[in-house]
Amino acid sequence: MCQNCVVKTIHSINNHFGWDNSLEPTARVAPGAELEFQCLDSSDGYFTPESVVADVSTMPFDKINPVTGPIFIEGAQPGDVLKVTIDSFKPCGFGWTANIPGFGLLADQFKEPALTLWHYDKDSLAPAAFGQFGKVPLKPFAGTIGVAPAAAGLHSIVPPRRVGGNLDIRDLAAGTTLYLPVEVEGALFSMGDTHAAQGDGEVCGTAIESAMDVVVKLDLIKSMPLAAPRFSTPGPVTRHLDTAGYEAFTGVAPDLMDAARQAVSSTIDWLCREHGMPAEQAYMLCSVCGDLRISEVVDMPNWVVSFYFPKVVFN
Amino acid sequence: MCQNCVVKTIHSINNHFGWDNSLEPTARVAPGAELEFQCLDSSDGYFTPESVVADVSTMPFDKINPVTGPIFIEGAQPGDVLKVTIDSFKPCGFGWTANIPGFGLLADQFKEPALTLWHYDKDSLAPAAFGQFGKVPLKPFAGTIGVAPAAAGLHSIVPPRRVGGNLDIRDLAAGTTLYLPVEVEGALFSMGDTHAAQGDGEVCGTAIESAMDVVVKLDLIKSMPLAAPRFSTPGPVTRHLDTAGYEAFTGVAPDLMDAARQAVSSTIDWLCREHGMPAEQAYMLCSVCGDLRISEVVDMPNWVVSFYFPKVVFN
Repeated sequence: MCQNCVVKTIHSINNHFGWDNSLEPTARVAPGAELEFQCLDSSDGYFTPESVVADVSTMPFDKINPVTGPIFIEGAQPGDVLKVTIDSFKPCGFGWTANIPGFGLLADQFKEPALTLWHYDKDSLAPAAFGQFGKVPLKPFAGTIGVAPAAAGLHSIVPPRRVGGNLDIRDLAAGTTLYLPVEVEGALFSMGDTHAAQGDGEVCGTAIESAMDVVVKLDLIKSMPLAAPRFSTPGPVTRHLDTAGYEAFTGVAPDLMDAARQAVSSTIDWLCREHGMPAEQAYMLCSVCGDLRISEVVDMPNWVVSFYFPKVVFN
Repeated sequence: MCQNCVVKTIHSINNHFGWDNSLEPTARVAPGAELEFQCLDSSDGYFTPESVVADVSTMPFDKINPVTGPIFIEGAQPGDVLKVTIDSFKPCGFGWTANIPGFGLLADQFKEPALTLWHYDKDSLAPAAFGQFGKVPLKPFAGTIGVAPAAAGLHSIVPPRRVGGNLDIRDLAAGTTLYLPVEVEGALFSMGDTHAAQGDGEVCGTAIESAMDVVVKLDLIKSMPLAAPRFSTPGPVTRHLDTAGYEAFTGVAPDLMDAARQAVSSTIDWLCREHGMPAEQAYMLCSVCGDLRISEVVDMPNWVVSFYFPKVVFN
């Protein structure tokens, strides 16, 4: 980052629920500004080290996924692109993963609430213990990062959109540059929903949800064509996971969603059978470290989705 | 592989088109056998270093994707699992990639035939030149690998099934162990459709299609539950691609197929704009080295699919 730039802190008290282009900006900055965002976890601090599984059922849904912001970037106009250089993360050391009934890829199979609490070393970011079963490599990133949509009114925080938002892309980590299409004057950038670890897919619906401070730089690119979010990683993206290889399970089906569901179900079956894990624990473990990949999408009429579970978890 | 086992060669003359459990086995082997399969390319030798684009339109579709086999494994019964340890590949040094009208993720956008011929060093397997544009890292694997289905009759070679077949999984490479559900007595194993390189998705419908000899070991596991193919990799799977990081483009949509199509379309737009590549060339390049990943599949109602293009191609 720029050595001469002052990093301004955007405090977590300046958070909002949902996207709305009529929100008053928390700050106005010139392009090139470096900002530190204090990001709350996606439960807005509801889950604590004392939480129990019964708390999942009483989670207040009007308080999920607060994002810190919005930031007005001077000169930003519809048709421009906001370039977000993601610099660094300071995680808090506590996290949670839950199965929330009604959410998740296998919501029909996992109807009961479940909760895992995580305690990790926020300085070393050494792999975090998952009970007695194994250790999950960490790679902090921002789950929700975006700008305000052009359409008026309040828009739910849950779905991602063309302008970003709840993208939950594991590789929006330190060093990555994210490009977002601007739809309103000033762009109105916000971020939150920070994760200490997640696999591609976020299959149970939550990651290692964890509050953190995030430093980013906001630049403006005038009149760049961009249909949807784009990002550029400075190097490899799976080296924290891949050293010992993968156990992978396929789903073969004429629908990608069905194939994805089959692949994850088979992985859970294997974790239960070979590692003696309760099914809901296996589901949450898959969500924080396993990757959904589309192996082939052209051999009509059946597509192959593979779920890659990293063996390093058990090493 | 076993030092004392004799490797038997299954010659490419012993090939068949489609899966049929009434085919006479080419060989009968005991579990533990090591075999070298001479695999034809997926055009059955139709494309040669002298081929031109007009040849794509006259490709004989009754001769696509020959597989070498079938092999009867003694003692194999329905409900067992065939364990295939993939040992090594001897590629031929020539390959082709085509856009075949009617096939591919973007068949509606790419209606004209296109053809790329590849010449690579079969010993060093150094990255292969893609015209003047860049170099594609190689990682040979078998695109089609499977056993006969229980259902009687001749089944098209094109779609993969529960028993494997045209899986086109990039990581079925040297060192990987593949597990296949057995549905008929003797299993009736065949393989072919070898690729010198492919990205996850095989988006244009073909990879670097290339004839090779492949050594595998066939073992039997009695009565193992297995819903669909499973595989285990001995180590990392993307290190040939990931050193310089990725340019990634997202698709955000309520349907995974739509999201995948958006992500690949945006990548092609970028390759044309930034690297001066004709669109059909960009499409074929994406197919041989770019990876489709499901970033999130839980943030209702919009899912995110990201296409990861490896920057090393242009380094």
